[in-house]
Amino acid sequence: MTTVATELFALDAAAQDLLFREAHTAHAFTDEPVSDEQIQAIYDLVKYAPTAMNQSPLRIVLVRTPEAKERLVGHMNDGNKAKTAAAPLTAILAADHEFHEHLPRLFPVYPTAKDMFAANDEARVGSAQMNATLQAAYFFLGIRAAGLAAGPMAGYNAEALTKDFFGEGKHSVLAVVNIGKPAEGAFYPRGERLAYDEVVTSV
Amino acid sequence: MTTVATELFALDAAAQDLLFREAHTAHAFTDEPVSDEQIQAIYDLVKYAPTAMNQSPLRIVLVRTPEAKERLVGHMNDGNKAKTAAAPLTAILAADHEFHEHLPRLFPVYPTAKDMFAANDEARVGSAQMNATLQAAYFFLGIRAAGLAAGPMAGYNAEALTKDFFGEGKHSVLAVVNIGKPAEGAFYPRGERLAYDEVVTSV
Repeated sequence: MTTVATELFALDAAAQDLLFREAHTAHAFTDEPVSDEQIQAIYDLVKYAPTAMNQSPLRIVLVRTPEAKERLVGHMNDGNKAKTAAAPLTAILAADHEFHEHLPRLFPVYPTAKDMFAANDEARVGSAQMNATLQAAYFFLGIRAAGLAAGPMAGYNAEALTKDFFGEGKHSVLAVVNIGKPAEGAFYPRGERLAYDEVVTSV
Repeated sequence: MTTVATELFALDAAAQDLLFREAHTAHAFTDEPVSDEQIQAIYDLVKYAPTAMNQSPLRIVLVRTPEAKERLVGHMNDGNKAKTAAAPLTAILAADHEFHEHLPRLFPVYPTAKDMFAANDEARVGSAQMNATLQAAYFFLGIRAAGLAAGPMAGYNAEALTKDFFGEGKHSVLAVVNIGKPAEGAFYPRGERLAYDEVVTSV
């Protein structure tokens, strides 16, 4: 059934399976640790994927200490507490509202970009959230590329979590993601996806 | 320099290069057409990547007719008009604010999800935009997986574009993306990326 489709790709079928077709959100993990070296390799791969004006607003906090994990778990919704507490590594993904400070270096072709964003808080925060969300998606796929499973979660007290880990006003948390090797029973059955004709139209 | 990093991956080095390391946003394309079959193959691959509650809010309009292309170009910022007019295919990516209508089918494990979102417009629209943005990122990488180049753009009159192609109030346009085989001179020099230590911290 997927034979025809895979032939249309430059990406080999094994890679398609690894990143998309056979990959699932994980809800349980083995005890095998996830190293900083692995996260750095993932970041150094997915950092190349595009953001508007190369603004790169994603910031990542790796929750390594038991004390920090306990604080994090306290902010998660009840249904996410146990699996977050048990995951070998949990990362907090946030948008940096002050990404524009780096634009003279990241996007030198447009020298006034920094000032343009500095003058418009609403546009700046919206752009940070949108582009950091793109980068969150790249990061999820990067986790899979590293042979690990990702368990992204949106169920937490966003205000309290942001304040606790980033202070006030300069970041917004976009997702919390558990990372590790999937344990037995890690995956729920695949949910139905919308059909092509429900999503894509031509004009 | 990338040798050590590639060894940490389950994804082979050629796939890493195709999707991330050697891929660039394209600003010019050959005349080679992009078929509906290719877009369907891309969608049928990237549809499996995760969204919150499998809500799958991304909607895609393929701009196929000269009349629709002309309308679209009229909404683009000046710097994006010529390359959009010349691209073999342009897609408009939008968030469907009424994604919750599909939740009983897409996420049957949580039967009250549809009503929860129906009761909270702000949460529903925010969730649609966030999760459709994740799916936009998956779609960009899917374009690359198909051996094509993506030229995503954020520079357009969002309000007028949304109204013209989706009517009022039920969608928000998130990105416009040119799709095709890159022409000579399609790529600008790679912009600098933030270093790992500027993005990732541990607590």
